[in-house]
Amino acid sequence: MPKHLLTPGPVPIPSFVMEAISQPVIHHRTPEFRSFYQELLSKLQYYFQTDSSTGTMIGSGTFGVECAIYSMFRPGDSVAVVDMGKFSNRWNLYAQLCSLKVHPLELAWGKAPNTQEIVAFVAQHSPKGIVLTHSETSTGTCLDLEEIAWQLRKAHPDLLIVVDAITSVGAQPYYHDAWGIDCSLAASQKALFNPTGLVAFALSERAKNALVPTDSADFRNFYNYLASAQTGDYPFTAPVNLLYGLNAALQHIEEVGLPALWRKTHLHAQTFRKALEEMGGVVRSEFPSETLTAFHFPDKDNESLRQDLWAQGFELAGGQGSWKNHVLRLSHMYPSDMEVLESLISTLRAMV
Amino acid sequence: MPKHLLTPGPVPIPSFVMEAISQPVIHHRTPEFRSFYQELLSKLQYYFQTDSSTGTMIGSGTFGVECAIYSMFRPGDSVAVVDMGKFSNRWNLYAQLCSLKVHPLELAWGKAPNTQEIVAFVAQHSPKGIVLTHSETSTGTCLDLEEIAWQLRKAHPDLLIVVDAITSVGAQPYYHDAWGIDCSLAASQKALFNPTGLVAFALSERAKNALVPTDSADFRNFYNYLASAQTGDYPFTAPVNLLYGLNAALQHIEEVGLPALWRKTHLHAQTFRKALEEMGGVVRSEFPSETLTAFHFPDKDNESLRQDLWAQGFELAGGQGSWKNHVLRLSHMYPSDMEVLESLISTLRAMV
Repeated sequence: MPKHLLTPGPVPIPSFVMEAISQPVIHHRTPEFRSFYQELLSKLQYYFQTDSSTGTMIGSGTFGVECAIYSMFRPGDSVAVVDMGKFSNRWNLYAQLCSLKVHPLELAWGKAPNTQEIVAFVAQHSPKGIVLTHSETSTGTCLDLEEIAWQLRKAHPDLLIVVDAITSVGAQPYYHDAWGIDCSLAASQKALFNPTGLVAFALSERAKNALVPTDSADFRNFYNYLASAQTGDYPFTAPVNLLYGLNAALQHIEEVGLPALWRKTHLHAQTFRKALEEMGGVVRSEFPSETLTAFHFPDKDNESLRQDLWAQGFELAGGQGSWKNHVLRLSHMYPSDMEVLESLISTLRAMV
Repeated sequence: MPKHLLTPGPVPIPSFVMEAISQPVIHHRTPEFRSFYQELLSKLQYYFQTDSSTGTMIGSGTFGVECAIYSMFRPGDSVAVVDMGKFSNRWNLYAQLCSLKVHPLELAWGKAPNTQEIVAFVAQHSPKGIVLTHSETSTGTCLDLEEIAWQLRKAHPDLLIVVDAITSVGAQPYYHDAWGIDCSLAASQKALFNPTGLVAFALSERAKNALVPTDSADFRNFYNYLASAQTGDYPFTAPVNLLYGLNAALQHIEEVGLPALWRKTHLHAQTFRKALEEMGGVVRSEFPSETLTAFHFPDKDNESLRQDLWAQGFELAGGQGSWKNHVLRLSHMYPSDMEVLESLISTLRAMV
């Protein structure tokens, strides 16, 4: 097993998180759990930078975005989806599966998304909502979400803006309220440095008004989670141990402060990209995310390179979809470490 | 916090499970993960007593049963649901939400389900499938699943038999293959003594043939989990740490042996029920499950009793739905302990 897990999710889990998870489980229908959970939800407000409602549910990131689409739109509703990689393509396909009237804006993998094009696309189709992927993990490409959200909100006050922030929030600047986002999604194994298994979300008043009650048994409907959360309750069996871990991470994030984490990610990414360029490597995205770098070396067998790094103790992710075997992907998210990065850089330099 | 968590899920998590969960996370798109996961799936075959396919997904038990209903039936399909408590009522409501043609057989809470009535009900409606709850956790009532499944299978070779075995499999006799069950569901926080967050399932050939591919992005469709599992893969981000814990529990179960665990649960339940009767307490179910006892003391304030036990270090669950404040519910599932049980019995005896 390589010594250093450097994939853009899952990320290594710090021992203080594991210690929190290992605390004795308590029953979830108790005053103790309710007060614990209410505090956790308020910590999530800091994480998403919102004064509005937050929630959690059991699931991986994919499930979270799917539940957001399911909870906020009804069959026949029109929705724009910016499809720019493997994950954002999932939201496109899933919205179709939900019988929404989908307007996909397909962008080439790794190209810088053109803000004006996205804004014009929404103006053209006037959808009820839009699904944006802030940082597309398959290509390491970012949207200029701040600019896009501002322009969309100004032109379309009622547009429902749903953001897959799974590999952005917590690791690079993200402002749910100030940017006018309606629904933001995070996943535990990314910038929350926890085991896979939890989704976290934030919902604006506009988003909450869009939720439609289905049935109290409906596991996918955010409505049920919000209704229960008013009293600190969980609509289904609460994932108590996983919530302990999430709470420990959120506590740490509050103590360190979001700007410090954002700076750390930024510095990590910049350091790597500068060294990469000096070695003749190429960042594959024209508008790279802060949280990961997808890169390759032209004229090299990049998958062999990845295997060689693996053998030297550094585990990076490979490419996905049409980029399979052609790129390496490196995480810059906490708990990424500058010392390990320097060591990765020297190892890579010796190889290429 | 009470010293002894005795609720029928979540159950206390043994330290060897927590130690397994705390192992360093590995990436799920690796040969290492695939071989680990394939071994885990074969351990699940022992757990369910099946030679057919097994799988896991992120979720709580409710989500697992909902995914089974969603994956095996299509809108308009007719399905019988035996509704005999809070959880089996959920399956009734959820099947309606999926636009199935639902035939609910509503039984009084706590009454012994009449096997002949269930068999006759299916003969009358000829549904495509039936959803049965082996052990209804809200009332502590069991179905005579062995007898019911045998009779149903004999009369209806193509009937899809879906079983919520969430508080039965692992703790009392359960034979997926021998009883002719098509889809069996388990949840991690019950007789798998793990944190809440994982669903496990077993599917017969008949069940697998009933699965309909929707979209590879569809988180709820068992089809995607089975397709990936053929190579030890996970269709979405795998919950690696939670799977470590599940694997440790399954390893333990194999070592101890299912019959030994079943006997232990049985003895625990019998010991408690005998003592309860001597104290003037009453088991609330006419056909109690092995895994939990729902009980009350006539003429007593049972919720106060529960609070008093709590103050003495014993946490039992209260009632749900119409039984709220009227019953106490005690787990007999591993890692329930005879010494703790004796101590609970003496404490209770001194109170009533």
